[in-house]
Amino acid sequence: MLDGLRARQPAALARAISVVENGRPGFEALLSALHPGLGRAHRIGITGPPGAGKSTLTERLVAAYRSQGHQVAVVAVDPTSPFSGGALLGDRIRMESIALDPGVFIRSMATRGSLGGLATSTREVCDVLDAAGFDRILVETVGVGQSELAVSRMADSSLLLLVPESGDGIQTLKSGVMEVADLFVVNKADRPGADKLRQEIEITLGIRRGNAFRHVPAHHGFKARTTAESEALAAESDAEWKHPVLATIAAKGEGIGEVIAALDAHRDWLAASGTMRERRRRRLEERTREVVDRALVRWVWDETGAGQAIRDRLDDLEAGRVSPYEVAGGILDGLKQGARP
Amino acid sequence: MLDGLRARQPAALARAISVVENGRPGFEALLSALHPGLGRAHRIGITGPPGAGKSTLTERLVAAYRSQGHQVAVVAVDPTSPFSGGALLGDRIRMESIALDPGVFIRSMATRGSLGGLATSTREVCDVLDAAGFDRILVETVGVGQSELAVSRMADSSLLLLVPESGDGIQTLKSGVMEVADLFVVNKADRPGADKLRQEIEITLGIRRGNAFRHVPAHHGFKARTTAESEALAAESDAEWKHPVLATIAAKGEGIGEVIAALDAHRDWLAASGTMRERRRRRLEERTREVVDRALVRWVWDETGAGQAIRDRLDDLEAGRVSPYEVAGGILDGLKQGARP
Repeated sequence: MLDGLRARQPAALARAISVVENGRPGFEALLSALHPGLGRAHRIGITGPPGAGKSTLTERLVAAYRSQGHQVAVVAVDPTSPFSGGALLGDRIRMESIALDPGVFIRSMATRGSLGGLATSTREVCDVLDAAGFDRILVETVGVGQSELAVSRMADSSLLLLVPESGDGIQTLKSGVMEVADLFVVNKADRPGADKLRQEIEITLGIRRGNAFRHVPAHHGFKARTTAESEALAAESDAEWKHPVLATIAAKGEGIGEVIAALDAHRDWLAASGTMRERRRRRLEERTREVVDRALVRWVWDETGAGQAIRDRLDDLEAGRVSPYEVAGGILDGLKQGARP
Repeated sequence: MLDGLRARQPAALARAISVVENGRPGFEALLSALHPGLGRAHRIGITGPPGAGKSTLTERLVAAYRSQGHQVAVVAVDPTSPFSGGALLGDRIRMESIALDPGVFIRSMATRGSLGGLATSTREVCDVLDAAGFDRILVETVGVGQSELAVSRMADSSLLLLVPESGDGIQTLKSGVMEVADLFVVNKADRPGADKLRQEIEITLGIRRGNAFRHVPAHHGFKARTTAESEALAAESDAEWKHPVLATIAAKGEGIGEVIAALDAHRDWLAASGTMRERRRRRLEERTREVVDRALVRWVWDETGAGQAIRDRLDDLEAGRVSPYEVAGGILDGLKQGARP
């Protein structure tokens, strides 16, 4: 399977992803074997409120990357929601324009367990895609809340897509804004309020430097540059990343080149500033913790008698003779001593 | 503190909630002591997409319960989101009309860790409020996704609030709709499409019985009834709950009496059908599992050397000499044997 995967054979790829996504026997051994070869792909997180145009932007970015000769994978993360489902379905249909390209791989991930679990599974699926040689992996999250943070923690570069209608929400981003995303994009920029929103984001970022709507911080160079040029630019700038705030009309393909250039510049900056290495180390530590937590919880409920120990006390719990905390305490004491309660 | 709490002294209540919410030393002992006296409150979950009018409905329900002499608590669960923040702020301001009433307690809970952790904390805060004698506890969740499911698992009665604009999403609820909520309410019922949405929900529920917009299933009796009447009605109906689909214009106070009556009827049905007991037992089992998981993860990272064991291998992880799965496996083996890695 490993050879098939590295040769990007569709069947091997589908099988590997399915094994990893469902935690089937051997999934950890597979991921373990892939580990040394990871890190070639640029992982890009795209998030934003429903209706911001994430799928349209993703589709445009995929087309642009394809025209540059990249192998592109799209992972769409759908936190289970009765409300976003309809929109999602539409998105998937629209994506069919790129789905027919054999150089593009699209996969939806649905929430099964907790969001925490989904975030880990998504990272692991991205590992498989990275190992398979996709050098651009776009992870699109639908919905709001924890999922954004989970994405920004997993991606090399995270992009927050907003529309003029999101204006009210931006005020609350406040000082936390830089942790939310590396790049900000105001989509549907031909609508009223787009200019104002962009200004507000820049003020919030504390990098407001002018009033012109199409003003672009010069040192980011939002034109296609050679890697050498970008690296030189990144190296001569501060250690701090200056978050670009861009404007697009994704439906018409306007501003896409600038987004691609900003993503390239961010990746170059990550490498030149040493941030890539830091982030990678932090993610490795986090991943190991997640794997421990997941395996530990699985072990307790599948392999020890803890579940039965609770059921044996249900009558007492119901009658108030014992509390959940007392029952849990007994189970924990046993686990800590290596006993199997 | 326990005596002050049971006497609903504001200072004792605030202190108890703070201890529980932040997991301060002794929080499990406190919850354990409260356990035997729980179960008097009617816990009601209110969820729905942003903009559906959840806070307006909550405010109206609080006023109605207060006029009946109930002590009412509102717990607003805010999954951290850069996008819903603005709306939330507005909601909190609007709620000030009820916040001045000493018979009403309002508390916001923000996501700190995982959503799973937030759901557990919310349930524990509700326990404190239950023990303090609040007999109606409204838990309002903002946002979409996992949080709905978490709420419906914690509440005795869960209400899904929709607006005509939510029409597209309802199709995807499909067969899972009954698990999402016990009551459905179409708010802003004077808007175009409200009638159609209500019909669609009823069709999805398979209980479509007529075309009249204001049609109400007769046997639910959406008028104020005595408890005895409601109980008799609930007892004579099937063991199965017939999900009501109601219409409100919360901003004008229209339809609130019907929602209150439906919530009362649901509670009566829960008791008469034996479902309350089943749900309570299931929740006690689930809670105990959550407490074990939470304490276990805390123990591993705070009290064993697992965190240091990962950091010691970071260089090897980065160089690809060892994978996160191998490092995690070693830690797990130690934990399972009761050793402290």
